[in-house]
Amino acid sequence: MTRRIRDYGVKIGRMQTGEENSITDVKGVTVGHTTIDDGPHQTGVTAILPHQGSLFKDKLIASSHVINGFGKSMGLIQINELGTLETPIILTNTLSIGVAADALIDHMLEHNPEIGRTTGTVNPVVCECNDMLLNDIRGKVVRKEHVLNAIHSAEKHVEEGSVGAGRGMLCYSLKGGIGTSSRMIFLDHGTYTLGVLVLSNFGILSDLMVGGNPVGEKLKLAILQEREERDKGSIIIVVATDLPVSERQLHRIIKRSVTGLSRTGSIITTGSGEVVIGFSTHTTTPHHPSGKLLSIPVIHEEDMDVAFRAVGEATEEAVLNSLVTATHVVGRDGNERPAFKDLIEKYDIPLV
Amino acid sequence: MTRRIRDYGVKIGRMQTGEENSITDVKGVTVGHTTIDDGPHQTGVTAILPHQGSLFKDKLIASSHVINGFGKSMGLIQINELGTLETPIILTNTLSIGVAADALIDHMLEHNPEIGRTTGTVNPVVCECNDMLLNDIRGKVVRKEHVLNAIHSAEKHVEEGSVGAGRGMLCYSLKGGIGTSSRMIFLDHGTYTLGVLVLSNFGILSDLMVGGNPVGEKLKLAILQEREERDKGSIIIVVATDLPVSERQLHRIIKRSVTGLSRTGSIITTGSGEVVIGFSTHTTTPHHPSGKLLSIPVIHEEDMDVAFRAVGEATEEAVLNSLVTATHVVGRDGNERPAFKDLIEKYDIPLV
Amino acid sequence: MTRRIRDYGVKIGRMQTGEENSITDVKGVTVGHTTIDDGPHQTGVTAILPHQGSLFKDKLIASSHVINGFGKSMGLIQINELGTLETPIILTNTLSIGVAADALIDHMLEHNPEIGRTTGTVNPVVCECNDMLLNDIRGKVVRKEHVLNAIHSAEKHVEEGSVGAGRGMLCYSLKGGIGTSSRMIFLDHGTYTLGVLVLSNFGILSDLMVGGNPVGEKLKLAILQEREERDKGSIIIVVATDLPVSERQLHRIIKRSVTGLSRTGSIITTGSGEVVIGFSTHTTTPHHPSGKLLSIPVIHEEDMDVAFRAVGEATEEAVLNSLVTATHVVGRDGNERPAFKDLIEKYDIPLV
Amino acid sequence: MTRRIRDYGVKIGRMQTGEENSITDVKGVTVGHTTIDDGPHQTGVTAILPHQGSLFKDKLIASSHVINGFGKSMGLIQINELGTLETPIILTNTLSIGVAADALIDHMLEHNPEIGRTTGTVNPVVCECNDMLLNDIRGKVVRKEHVLNAIHSAEKHVEEGSVGAGRGMLCYSLKGGIGTSSRMIFLDHGTYTLGVLVLSNFGILSDLMVGGNPVGEKLKLAILQEREERDKGSIIIVVATDLPVSERQLHRIIKRSVTGLSRTGSIITTGSGEVVIGFSTHTTTPHHPSGKLLSIPVIHEEDMDVAFRAVGEATEEAVLNSLVTATHVVGRDGNERPAFKDLIEKYDIPLV
Repeated sequence: MTRRIRDYGVKIGRMQTGEENSITDVKGVTVGHTTIDDGPHQTGVTAILPHQGSLFKDKLIASSHVINGFGKSMGLIQINELGTLETPIILTNTLSIGVAADALIDHMLEHNPEIGRTTGTVNPVVCECNDMLLNDIRGKVVRKEHVLNAIHSAEKHVEEGSVGAGRGMLCYSLKGGIGTSSRMIFLDHGTYTLGVLVLSNFGILSDLMVGGNPVGEKLKLAILQEREERDKGSIIIVVATDLPVSERQLHRIIKRSVTGLSRTGSIITTGSGEVVIGFSTHTTTPHHPSGKLLSIPVIHEEDMDVAFRAVGEATEEAVLNSLVTATHVVGRDGNERPAFKDLIEKYDIPLV
Repeated sequence: MTRRIRDYGVKIGRMQTGEENSITDVKGVTVGHTTIDDGPHQTGVTAILPHQGSLFKDKLIASSHVINGFGKSMGLIQINELGTLETPIILTNTLSIGVAADALIDHMLEHNPEIGRTTGTVNPVVCECNDMLLNDIRGKVVRKEHVLNAIHSAEKHVEEGSVGAGRGMLCYSLKGGIGTSSRMIFLDHGTYTLGVLVLSNFGILSDLMVGGNPVGEKLKLAILQEREERDKGSIIIVVATDLPVSERQLHRIIKRSVTGLSRTGSIITTGSGEVVIGFSTHTTTPHHPSGKLLSIPVIHEEDMDVAFRAVGEATEEAVLNSLVTATHVVGRDGNERPAFKDLIEKYDIPLV
Repeated sequence: MTRRIRDYGVKIGRMQTGEENSITDVKGVTVGHTTIDDGPHQTGVTAILPHQGSLFKDKLIASSHVINGFGKSMGLIQINELGTLETPIILTNTLSIGVAADALIDHMLEHNPEIGRTTGTVNPVVCECNDMLLNDIRGKVVRKEHVLNAIHSAEKHVEEGSVGAGRGMLCYSLKGGIGTSSRMIFLDHGTYTLGVLVLSNFGILSDLMVGGNPVGEKLKLAILQEREERDKGSIIIVVATDLPVSERQLHRIIKRSVTGLSRTGSIITTGSGEVVIGFSTHTTTPHHPSGKLLSIPVIHEEDMDVAFRAVGEATEEAVLNSLVTATHVVGRDGNERPAFKDLIEKYDIPLV
Repeated sequence: MTRRIRDYGVKIGRMQTGEENSITDVKGVTVGHTTIDDGPHQTGVTAILPHQGSLFKDKLIASSHVINGFGKSMGLIQINELGTLETPIILTNTLSIGVAADALIDHMLEHNPEIGRTTGTVNPVVCECNDMLLNDIRGKVVRKEHVLNAIHSAEKHVEEGSVGAGRGMLCYSLKGGIGTSSRMIFLDHGTYTLGVLVLSNFGILSDLMVGGNPVGEKLKLAILQEREERDKGSIIIVVATDLPVSERQLHRIIKRSVTGLSRTGSIITTGSGEVVIGFSTHTTTPHHPSGKLLSIPVIHEEDMDVAFRAVGEATEEAVLNSLVTATHVVGRDGNERPAFKDLIEKYDIPLV
C-alpha cells in the first residue's frame, strides 16, 4: 500500500484532515487519470470534476491566481471575469494543451447540445506542466481519448504520484506528480472542507524542506549530487472547498496556497509556471437567468483566517504527498528520476 | 438657474435619467462641497456620503478601478481586497490629500470610539486632481475644517461646476469641475438607479465632443487658439448604485465608465490620473461577524448589459454637465479659464 | 476595388496614416488568412506574423490587456509575466482554439527542433471570437492545415472584411470581420508607426457611430428593424508598433485602444470577450542569455500621448474598416448578415 | 551590542550577505528613524532614502506588490503605472498616514520649487502598520517634524527592533519592528546587492518558525500561553537593489518576498496588510524628457532566479532580525510585549 507523508510521521500544520485527506473530501469532487507509460512516452492526463451534475448548466463560483506566469494554462481569463467554472479541469503536459482543450470542448459539446446553437460557447480549463526530461514531449502522444478517459474514470479515490498528468513530472529534482490533501474547517454556522490537488513539477533538490527539516540538503550530500539542476518546472494547484464564499473571498484563499508551497522550499523560479485554480461547491449559478435575484451565501471576512491556514497546510502536504508517493520512472533517452521514498530508505534519511 | 447639458438640447444615450439626473438619485447618497475662492487660492473639497447611517458599522460593497494610475488616490487597495467601503469619499486637490486623509481619519475616530481600541483601524478614501493652473496648489490652503464642512454640508441637491474640489479644475482646456448624472435600470425583479459624479480635470480643447459633435474643434477655430495645451489633468469618477451586485460585478460595471469618458473625446493622456470608485447601497456588510452566514443578493450576469450602458451614458453626461455648468474662474497669477457656456454663447456654437 | 472607410469621406482623428493604413505598415509585420466558405461552414483563420525571422529565438517585447474577459484567448499569462511574444498570433473561432493551438505548436516544433529537447517549451498565442450565427461552430471544421496555410500565406497586403477568422463574424448586428489601420508617430528621435488589426464581432446596430454620426440608429429606422439583438460578440485587437517601448509602456498604449472602440459605439457588453495584444518590433530579446546585460531603448513617459492618440484612432478606424469592407454572408441554417456597404447604399445613408 | 539572528547561530539560506547585512548595503540607500517613547505613545516614523541625490529629478525604477490589501499604503498606484519612485518611502502607524503624507509633500515642495508651478505634482509614498496595542494610536502624536527628522537623520547604519515606525509593532505576538538583511548577487556581468527592510507587525506566536525550527510552539508551551491572540497585524517590505532590471522584472522579484515571509510561519491573515515596495538604484530616469531615447540596461530573464532566492532569504532574515533585536515595550494602558530575546534566554529555548 502506498505510504503518504503522514505515514512517515510527518504532520503538517495543526488542522484536522478530511476523511481521506484528499481533494475529494469536498463532496461531489472526483478525480480521474490516464497514465501513458510507453518507453519514451511517460506522460498523461488528469481530470478534476468539481461536481457530478452538469457544470455547464450549474456553474460553480471559481477563481484563478497566477503565482508565476511562465505557463500556458487556458481558461483563466473567463474564470476571473465571470467568477465561474463551467467545465472539468484538465491537467496534462505543456505541448498537449491544444489537444486537451479540443477534447474537452468535444466533451462539453456532446453533453450540451445547446452550446453554439441556442446559447453561447464554453470556456475549457486546461493547465499544464512541462515533463520534457522523462517524456518525449515533442512526440505529442496525448490523444482525445486519453482526455475523455480521464474524465470518465474520475472517482472519489485519488491515486497519487507518477500517475496521470504527473507521470513524467519532477519535484525537487526527484520524481514528482500528483498529490492531494485536505483540511476541515469548523465555523459557528457549519463544518466545511477544503482540499488541494497538485501537479508538482518544480524545485531543486537542495531546497527541499519537509516540515521544516532540510531533507533536500541532507539527501544531496548523501547521493553526492554535484551539480544543481536548473529548475524548468511548474506547479498546478487546484483548490476545492464547500465553504460559502464569494469569488473575491475564494481568490483571497487560493492566493495563500503560496505559503504552503514556500514551506516545502520553493523559491518560485523564473521558468516555473505556477497557477492556482479554486472553486466552491457551496452555491451553483444557473447558466440561464430566471428573472429573479440570486442569493450568494458567504462567510464574514473575519472568518477567513481558518481557510487561509487550511489552504497553506493542504498545499504543503499535497506537494509532499506527490513527492513521497511517486515511483521511479525511466523515460525518454533513458532519462530517469529516482523515487524520494526509495532514496530516503536507501540512505536512511529520517523525515522527522 | 444653472443650465445643464440637457437644457441645451443634448441628449446622451437612450436610457431614462433619475429624478434629479444626479448621483443622489441613488437613495441615501448625499454630496457636500467646501469651495475656496480667495484670490490665488481657487480650490476646495467635495464629500460623497454613500449612506446616512454609520458606514463603518454597515459597510457597502465597493470596488475601484484605475484607468490611468498617474494619480495619488488613497484607500483603493483595501477597497479591492475586502470589497467594502467604510468612509465617505473625499475629493480635493493633489497636494491636499494628506490633510484630507487626516481630517477624514479624525471624523471617523470621532464617530467611532471603538476604532483603534476594541477594533482595528479605518480605511480613508481620498481622491484628487491637480488644479495648479488656477490654484496656488503649493499654498496648501485646504484645512481640516474644510473637509469636515464638506462632509457636514452634504445634501441631496448636488451643486455642479466650479465648486468644491472642482473649483480650480480644467476640462478640455476650459473650466471644469463637478458634474453628475444618473440612469434608471429596469429589471424583472425591480427598478434600480445608477448615478455618477465626476471631478473633471482632463483633456485638450480640440478633442472635445458633445454627443458626437466635434464642438472642441469648432470652438478652437472660433477662439483662434493657436497652441494646444499639454494635458496635465485627471478625472475622478464616483459611481453609486442600488443594484444588488457582488464586488466583482460592480468592478465590471465601473470599468465601463471609460466608454462614456471616451465619447467626450478623451484619449486618456499619460499625465491624467483617472480613477473610478463605485459602491452599491443595496446590501450592507456588518463590521462585526454574527456567527451566521451573510447572504448577498446579486443580479444574473446576463442582466449586466443595462448597467454597463447606464454607467457609460451617465459618465458621458456627468462630464458634459461639469463642463457646461462651470463658471469662469480667475486664479493664481491671473491665470484664468473661460466658461464653456460663455464661449458657446459668444461664438454662437450650436451643441446639436 | 474594396472601398475602405476613408473612401466614404470619413476621416478618423487627426493623425497621419501609414502608407497602406494597415498594421503591416509596421515593418516586418505580415498577415495571412484562410477563409472557409462552404455552406453552413463560414469561418476561418487569420495569422499575424510579428517579424519575418525566428520569433522563438528573437522574441519581441509584448503585452496583453483584457478589456472584458468573457473569452478564451490563450497565451496571455506568459506574455504578461515575461513581456515577450515568441509565436505568430492566430485568430479563429471560439471552439477551434484547441486545434489552432495544437497546429501552432506543431509549426513551432517544426521550426525549432530544440524546443522540448535542449530548451523549454513554447507559448502559443491564439485568440478567438464566436461566429455561431453564420457558422456551424459545432462542426469544428478548422484543421491544422488551415492554420498552417494562414501562417504560410502571410503577406504585407491585408485583405479585410469577411475573410480569414472574420468570415463568420458580426459587427453592430451587420457583417463584421477583419479590419486594419495605422498611424505615423513623429518624435524628436525618429518617425515610428503604430498599426492595429481587429477581428470585430460585437455590438448592436443602434449603437453604431461613424465619426460621431449615429449611423446605426438611422439605419435601424431605415430597415425597420424591430427587435434589438442581444450582443454575444467579442473583439480581438492586435497592436503592432516599432516604437521603442518597455512592456509597461506598451501595456499603457494598448489599454487605450478602448477609446477608439468606445467611439464606434461599443458599451462592452457582458458576453463580449475583448482582448488586446500588442508587440513592439523595435527590440528583440534573445532566447538564450549571452552573459551580458541587455539594453532596452525606450521613449520618455512624457512622449506617450501621441502613441495613446494613435492607438485610439487606429482602433476606431480598423473597426470601421472591418465593417465597411465586409461582404454579405449566408451561412448556417440560412442565417445571413447584410453588408454595411450594401445597406448604406440601398437606404442612402450618408456617412458624413 | 545588539545581537542579530546570525549571532544566535541561525543561518538563513545559502547566499552571501552584504557587508552590513542591511538594506543599506545597496549603495546610496540610507534609513532614518524617529522614535516616540512617551508613556502611552509608543510609535514613530522610519524613512528610507533610495538615493542621495534629487529623487524627483532622477527617479528610480520601482514597483509595488500587494500581498494582502487590508492596508492603507499610499502612492502604489502611480509607482505601478509609471514604474518610478520619486520620493523617500515613509513608514509610520496607520492613523498617521495623512500627517506623514502631508509632511512628505512639504519636504518635496521645499526641495523642488518647480512642483506645482512649472511641472506637475509629486507622488508621496507612505506605508503603515497598526500599532494600537502598545500605542495610543487614536492620540495621533506623529507630527510633521517627526517625519522630517526621520528623513534628515537617515544614515547608512540601520538601527533595528523597537525603533522608528517599529516602536509599537508586534511580531508573532511578541515585540516586533524594524529588521533588515541583504544578499550578494554574482552574475557574469557584475556583482550586485539586494537588501530588504521590514516593518514587522504580524503573526501569532504558535506559527513562528526560525530556520525550520518551530520555536513559536515551544515558546508557547514554555510561557503557558493559553489563548491565541487574533492577528491584526501587517508587514511592510521594502526591497532595494542595484541590479539592472525593468519594472516588470523588479515586480517579479519583489513578489517572491512572500517565500521568505512564509518560511517564518506567516499564513497571511485577513487583517494583515502586507505590502512590498521595491526599487532599483541602477538606472535613473530623468523627470524631463531630453528629446533622446532612454536606454534601460536589464538582466536576461534566465538570470532572475538568483534574485528570487536573494529576496526570499533576505526577507526571512529581516523578519527574524526585527524580532530578535526588538526590546520589551510597555505602552498604552500598561499593555506590554516581551522581547523575543529575553524569552528565549529566560526559558532557554535554543534557536538551532
